[in-house]
Amino acid sequence: MSQIKVGIVGYGNLGKGVEKAIRQNPDLQLEAIFTRREPQGVEASVPVVHIGEAEKYIGKIDVMILCGGSATDLPEQGPALAKLFNTVDSFDTHARIPEYFAQVDAVAVAAGHVSVISTGWDPGLFSLNRMLAEAILPEGKEYTFWGRGVSQGHSDAIRRVEGVKNGVQYTIPVEQAVAQVRAGENPELTTRQKHLRECFVVAEEGADKARIEKEIKEMPNYFSDYDTTVNFISEEELKANHSAMPHGGTVLRSGRTGENSTQIIEFGLKLDSNPEFTASVLVAYARAVAKLSAQGDKGAKTVFDIPFGLLSPKSAEQLRKELL
Amino acid sequence: MSQIKVGIVGYGNLGKGVEKAIRQNPDLQLEAIFTRREPQGVEASVPVVHIGEAEKYIGKIDVMILCGGSATDLPEQGPALAKLFNTVDSFDTHARIPEYFAQVDAVAVAAGHVSVISTGWDPGLFSLNRMLAEAILPEGKEYTFWGRGVSQGHSDAIRRVEGVKNGVQYTIPVEQAVAQVRAGENPELTTRQKHLRECFVVAEEGADKARIEKEIKEMPNYFSDYDTTVNFISEEELKANHSAMPHGGTVLRSGRTGENSTQIIEFGLKLDSNPEFTASVLVAYARAVAKLSAQGDKGAKTVFDIPFGLLSPKSAEQLRKELL
Repeated sequence: MSQIKVGIVGYGNLGKGVEKAIRQNPDLQLEAIFTRREPQGVEASVPVVHIGEAEKYIGKIDVMILCGGSATDLPEQGPALAKLFNTVDSFDTHARIPEYFAQVDAVAVAAGHVSVISTGWDPGLFSLNRMLAEAILPEGKEYTFWGRGVSQGHSDAIRRVEGVKNGVQYTIPVEQAVAQVRAGENPELTTRQKHLRECFVVAEEGADKARIEKEIKEMPNYFSDYDTTVNFISEEELKANHSAMPHGGTVLRSGRTGENSTQIIEFGLKLDSNPEFTASVLVAYARAVAKLSAQGDKGAKTVFDIPFGLLSPKSAEQLRKELL
Repeated sequence: MSQIKVGIVGYGNLGKGVEKAIRQNPDLQLEAIFTRREPQGVEASVPVVHIGEAEKYIGKIDVMILCGGSATDLPEQGPALAKLFNTVDSFDTHARIPEYFAQVDAVAVAAGHVSVISTGWDPGLFSLNRMLAEAILPEGKEYTFWGRGVSQGHSDAIRRVEGVKNGVQYTIPVEQAVAQVRAGENPELTTRQKHLRECFVVAEEGADKARIEKEIKEMPNYFSDYDTTVNFISEEELKANHSAMPHGGTVLRSGRTGENSTQIIEFGLKLDSNPEFTASVLVAYARAVAKLSAQGDKGAKTVFDIPFGLLSPKSAEQLRKELL
């Protein structure tokens, strides 16, 4: 197979991560980056093109990697681009996945394209592991712990509080709960028993810190069900120590077989950079999309539909010899 | 899809594990157990049939799960049974996998059957994780740690030493090495730095224990490259405390993305019963084999060729809704 030609749609943290990941994969070549912004203002290693011009790249790009957000970008861009190209995306609004799948599938089947939706690490690798573990250990209990990592949604929620200039929130798994699951105890865990929330907040000058702390800790949905700590720091400290985007987590299944054997399957990620890792997953799935499309396949797919062998640049023979 | 009818070939620890695992999966039904022994002497929950009579079950069994050993059973039974049935096996002689694949593939393609070879946890789930992690993080280093668990090969080696009545060997990962890898240090580890070997030995009456200990510790290939401890215990103690077959291990990949982000992917198993867990994996793959065969597929396959979705009794739609 000759080099797979890739386009990136959306040039935020995720799009930039994809650009870097493609450099680590010599069988892929980045052709262009597509943006809704004024292309002149965007610096990148390849041509930057307005998204409205994407159609001109039909035949020049094998797979478009969609790096927009799930709230507003992907519901529109996913179906629109599946009409023109093979695509990969990280649509992660769990409740709307069936609807999004159906929309993309209809367009992709009609156009003869392959579209992998909702990949990354959660949904994505975590979903794969939840599914695998359930299929192998049907009698069992599944636990997902997220973190230690930055939650964008919770950081945004902090920043909406009056008197807050800036803020970052870390989701932290409760060590004791993880240890109980690993020990095969199958605990029943409340929301509060599974995760802690740690906030680093820069207050506006003169703001009432006690009121801010109270408002954060009592915020429904985001913080009230958790043990939350609020640390006030300076803007400089926030920039110096809390600009990275680490994340990760653990999917555990504790099951029983035979008379009473406890069997534990665990999958974990510890990521210095959440967007770079998600990007690396998208790039591996872009390779699978190109291979499936070359085989004449079409329609929307999820991680559950893709054999792992297609994610690798190695041949099936090589994989059997080197990695089985 | 109606119930999948399964046969078990070989009724040792693994075969018995498969019998138990099938009971946990209501979409599968065990039809018969095939053995090389005199069937009258074997007690089981379904008819026990001499392996020579397997042909009579053509049309009555959708998938045969081959539970024989890799040294002598599978090289003969794999191709012979792929001629008559869809099959699943756990062939684990790494160096001979390409050759075994080719043999089974030729027969299965000609007969129109699907045969998944070399599944279980290693090869199997560990292979999948090594492959996945390499595809996502092409710049990185892979580590596999086995244990704490009983190694049959090493236990057999102990039992061949003169003056040894019985013995069990545990392979134990070196905690410090695992911690270094988890911390992203990418250490270069020698054989000795990765695993310890712990032996529990029952000596014959009057045997020279010092000589036995020396002989075990200096045994090439098996023990001489490791820090090995030898504990002499009574037969009663061995039976009481070392009859179980726990095992497990960890596959880690520590990779880099972007400028210098460390990204760690970890997959681990902690198993009370190695044969029961391997059996549970074989059963999930038997389901996939039945589905692939129903779709008209044929030939030998490995874990790299099978989408995870086929391992589950749930429909693709259900999986997207519940597990993505």
